[in-house]
Amino acid sequence: MKRKFEGIFPALVTPMTSDGEVDHNALAGLIEYLITEGDVHGIIPLGSTGEFYALSDAERETVAKTSIETAAGRVPVLVGTNDSSTERVVEHSKQAESLGADGLLLAAPYYALPTHDELFSHFSAVNDAVRIPIMLYNYPGRTGVDMTPDLIVRLAELENVLYVKESSGDVTRVSEIIRRSGDRINVFCGCDCLAMESFVLGAVGWVGGIVNFLPQEHVRLFELAVQEGDLLAARDLYYRMLPALSHIENSGKYTQLVKAGCGLIGRPVGPPRGPLESASQEDVAQLKAIIETLKGSAL
Amino acid sequence: MKRKFEGIFPALVTPMTSDGEVDHNALAGLIEYLITEGDVHGIIPLGSTGEFYALSDAERETVAKTSIETAAGRVPVLVGTNDSSTERVVEHSKQAESLGADGLLLAAPYYALPTHDELFSHFSAVNDAVRIPIMLYNYPGRTGVDMTPDLIVRLAELENVLYVKESSGDVTRVSEIIRRSGDRINVFCGCDCLAMESFVLGAVGWVGGIVNFLPQEHVRLFELAVQEGDLLAARDLYYRMLPALSHIENSGKYTQLVKAGCGLIGRPVGPPRGPLESASQEDVAQLKAIIETLKGSAL
Amino acid sequence: MKRKFEGIFPALVTPMTSDGEVDHNALAGLIEYLITEGDVHGIIPLGSTGEFYALSDAERETVAKTSIETAAGRVPVLVGTNDSSTERVVEHSKQAESLGADGLLLAAPYYALPTHDELFSHFSAVNDAVRIPIMLYNYPGRTGVDMTPDLIVRLAELENVLYVKESSGDVTRVSEIIRRSGDRINVFCGCDCLAMESFVLGAVGWVGGIVNFLPQEHVRLFELAVQEGDLLAARDLYYRMLPALSHIENSGKYTQLVKAGCGLIGRPVGPPRGPLESASQEDVAQLKAIIETLKGSAL
Amino acid sequence: MKRKFEGIFPALVTPMTSDGEVDHNALAGLIEYLITEGDVHGIIPLGSTGEFYALSDAERETVAKTSIETAAGRVPVLVGTNDSSTERVVEHSKQAESLGADGLLLAAPYYALPTHDELFSHFSAVNDAVRIPIMLYNYPGRTGVDMTPDLIVRLAELENVLYVKESSGDVTRVSEIIRRSGDRINVFCGCDCLAMESFVLGAVGWVGGIVNFLPQEHVRLFELAVQEGDLLAARDLYYRMLPALSHIENSGKYTQLVKAGCGLIGRPVGPPRGPLESASQEDVAQLKAIIETLKGSAL
Repeated sequence: MKRKFEGIFPALVTPMTSDGEVDHNALAGLIEYLITEGDVHGIIPLGSTGEFYALSDAERETVAKTSIETAAGRVPVLVGTNDSSTERVVEHSKQAESLGADGLLLAAPYYALPTHDELFSHFSAVNDAVRIPIMLYNYPGRTGVDMTPDLIVRLAELENVLYVKESSGDVTRVSEIIRRSGDRINVFCGCDCLAMESFVLGAVGWVGGIVNFLPQEHVRLFELAVQEGDLLAARDLYYRMLPALSHIENSGKYTQLVKAGCGLIGRPVGPPRGPLESASQEDVAQLKAIIETLKGSAL
Repeated sequence: MKRKFEGIFPALVTPMTSDGEVDHNALAGLIEYLITEGDVHGIIPLGSTGEFYALSDAERETVAKTSIETAAGRVPVLVGTNDSSTERVVEHSKQAESLGADGLLLAAPYYALPTHDELFSHFSAVNDAVRIPIMLYNYPGRTGVDMTPDLIVRLAELENVLYVKESSGDVTRVSEIIRRSGDRINVFCGCDCLAMESFVLGAVGWVGGIVNFLPQEHVRLFELAVQEGDLLAARDLYYRMLPALSHIENSGKYTQLVKAGCGLIGRPVGPPRGPLESASQEDVAQLKAIIETLKGSAL
Repeated sequence: MKRKFEGIFPALVTPMTSDGEVDHNALAGLIEYLITEGDVHGIIPLGSTGEFYALSDAERETVAKTSIETAAGRVPVLVGTNDSSTERVVEHSKQAESLGADGLLLAAPYYALPTHDELFSHFSAVNDAVRIPIMLYNYPGRTGVDMTPDLIVRLAELENVLYVKESSGDVTRVSEIIRRSGDRINVFCGCDCLAMESFVLGAVGWVGGIVNFLPQEHVRLFELAVQEGDLLAARDLYYRMLPALSHIENSGKYTQLVKAGCGLIGRPVGPPRGPLESASQEDVAQLKAIIETLKGSAL
Repeated sequence: MKRKFEGIFPALVTPMTSDGEVDHNALAGLIEYLITEGDVHGIIPLGSTGEFYALSDAERETVAKTSIETAAGRVPVLVGTNDSSTERVVEHSKQAESLGADGLLLAAPYYALPTHDELFSHFSAVNDAVRIPIMLYNYPGRTGVDMTPDLIVRLAELENVLYVKESSGDVTRVSEIIRRSGDRINVFCGCDCLAMESFVLGAVGWVGGIVNFLPQEHVRLFELAVQEGDLLAARDLYYRMLPALSHIENSGKYTQLVKAGCGLIGRPVGPPRGPLESASQEDVAQLKAIIETLKGSAL
């Protein structure tokens, strides 16, 4: 039986110690916090915010393991298994499945600039190699490739392709995918500043990074907009969240500020790995003020 | 003494056998051809056309080795050492230097979306780790990051940053870099359809992929435009080349068609590695017709 | 007392006779239909869909007159008074006010590419010349100028600037304007494929062209989404409308298909004026099929 | 016999008196200066820099008249006759011909967003209405419409369409047009920062606004690059000019700074007309410094 994914799925940061190693204790603590105090509906290690691209293969494996073991079946774990060649994506994906992942998060292979036909072959290869659901992830700003609704609809023919995280920034993509393949594929919002819009269009969930340190707000928005259908309350909360969401999304320092935000709520996760660097003191102070306004209390 | 790079530098394809392994014999043969019959001025293994992103670390090392050994000092070898983390780029770069590379080709680390300040730190780390020249490589379409002239000028403060390959597609970048840092950094054209324009602006060379199978034409254009200053003859040759250059650049299948082109001149290099696939028969036939028109004879 | 505008405001087509003259009978008939059978909440002659840019000054005056006289106070009439110089925009605006317009629709003056400071001066001049509300209109695809939320917030300082029609295509503009100046300015959706998203964000209305021939559907969507707060029913209707909205918005022939659509519901409005031309028979047949699917019956 | 246009063609500013009227004395004086002291090869009243879009029909007529009478056959006069409807463009064009214009400068009709088929009809109508050469003008940033090389090649079938001014900003458009229709249509550079590049590709001339106050430099660049083929001297001059060209092109205040520049060389032309405003004192001081560096002497 295929588990149905819906709700708030944090793209987990990968905590690092001060000497740059993966901090598994902090990772397990963060996951525990997100599940028990944040009530999130799933977790996604090794996404963009998780800096998978800066981890070794061995580190990717241990991060997946820690995540799956800590979740311990309480919420589904989707593992990011992207890379820049088909062979490596298949390997990562098979490994994630063997470790017990409930699903995979998969953007287009980056740097290579495959055509749409080649992407169909690529995802077919992954589809054939695993038996767990695949969440496609359209993020042309990082991969150089735009997975259009036409392509998404075509990829939805593949048995395990059941979800898509839309991060193009164009919300008409969400409505077009739902309109054209709504029964076949479920859409997750992948742009923090389009969350409410995506929910009202029928998106079943939201994958983001800011949720690492603001889980209660994210979960409450999902409950209000999707489960309770209380549009006015949802809108009110959304507008309270938008200064933070918009600030971080448009900063050019998404991962850096998300890591800083974890520190601000008392769950330090260390610096990002190069080429990214820790947010400056000035950036942290600015973020702190925005979060305090949202929370209505000092951090 | 630092060797001065100028002229035609092919971004070498990485030949593959039919079962998908790197074909070192074909690679050595291609390099020998390009040097002895093509008279190219340097070679660049492990660039974008070389599918470095789809090779293992071990393969990257052996491709660099074969290239350096085959060149054997006859022309400089710049090794592409890019990756998506600073640590790995430094490692690849140190290894390339230890193998005898004459320089490095380095785009922004991909997928990570570093800020300009972070890119300065990143390239500083590479600069400090090696003693060979670095050719920056601006290709926002693949990396997601635009290395503007402002940033290039700033990076040119680093001792080993002596060259830039401009692949943004905007030729005013070439004139702006030369105008603002002309004495400090040398520009190589990185867009095949802007080669002649770049030369007349003062670019000292051209890094491309199509030169893998059209070396004589590329070298002749450089001689006419840069060395002999015969503008009219250069223009005439350029317009004869443009149907091929433009077709391949705008095809969305650059590496695929370059590999097909090598086959068309009798130097087969096998298929690209997934996610890329071999050009279709129809694509090859179309390319053949264009190349025959350029050559003025059947292939 | 300033009348509050909200709801569905058709950007009226300008009907033409077969010999290319403005057809005032058809215009009056269309307005009567929209008000009495469509229950629209206001009308806007001389917007983009009204081809104001292809009418003479005298024709603009008579179209405004016919619209105001036909509406006869039953619904507010906003008159498009845009042009490419400040002087002419002020003239058109004063004339519209003197004819009895309830408000003005005003994009940035086109072709001239004014700066944001110059736009502030421009709209200040119009603001000072009239005493009726101004609806700003951000349509960079036609005017060459992007009126960002920063500028909109600044323009909202002007006494008569009370509304903005957002047609940039980026729905985060809607939330940003509402978030930053929600008490001061009211947003109308100006992209047909973002109507529902805009409503849930707090947009108070929708200005469009397709409503010329689908008024009941547009009004019902507003009622469901804004007045009744029945999100699920609104979404269901929106998805039924989207094939038509999306087809026309992305056709590159917006005005042409809107005029064809009027013919399809039995209210022919003649051809557009050059440079636009009547939709082809093929285009009309395709549109007819889409509309019949939406209506659930043959036209 | 059709006169062949080539060389430097200033897009004339339209001088204004301090109370905002067209200043015909200043216009005649400017033209006299450009012809006798600047040695320009043609003049173009009523282009974008000439603010045609902010003039009345009567003013457009008198500006064309003054230009043609002052040129008095010494150099060809191309009159800008653009507008936003086909009917008005035809009228302006017939009038210009009857006043003695040697040719027409014609961008796509603005604001209307015609399709390529509709543009073909539009230009056919103008072509059929006159017997003088038409210079197409591709400026998508102002008109909202991109006249691609495909369309240009098609329009070149029309008898009077003999020239194209390329202002898209992409110099590969220049090479593509020349490559595909070189014998049929002559290209003028329409981006000041691409002048040298366009010349080496075979452009026969340059239409610009900065030439209003720097005619000698523009003419000398044409002589060096096109007539004398002295590439190195041309490049040297071009790099001396680029700080000014680049500053003005990227300022967002092209017409404003060109008018300011005329004042700086002792030929004041008054303010632009709203929505544009006079350059600020700070802008003028900055421009003055740049021009003095170019001239090598104080103004």
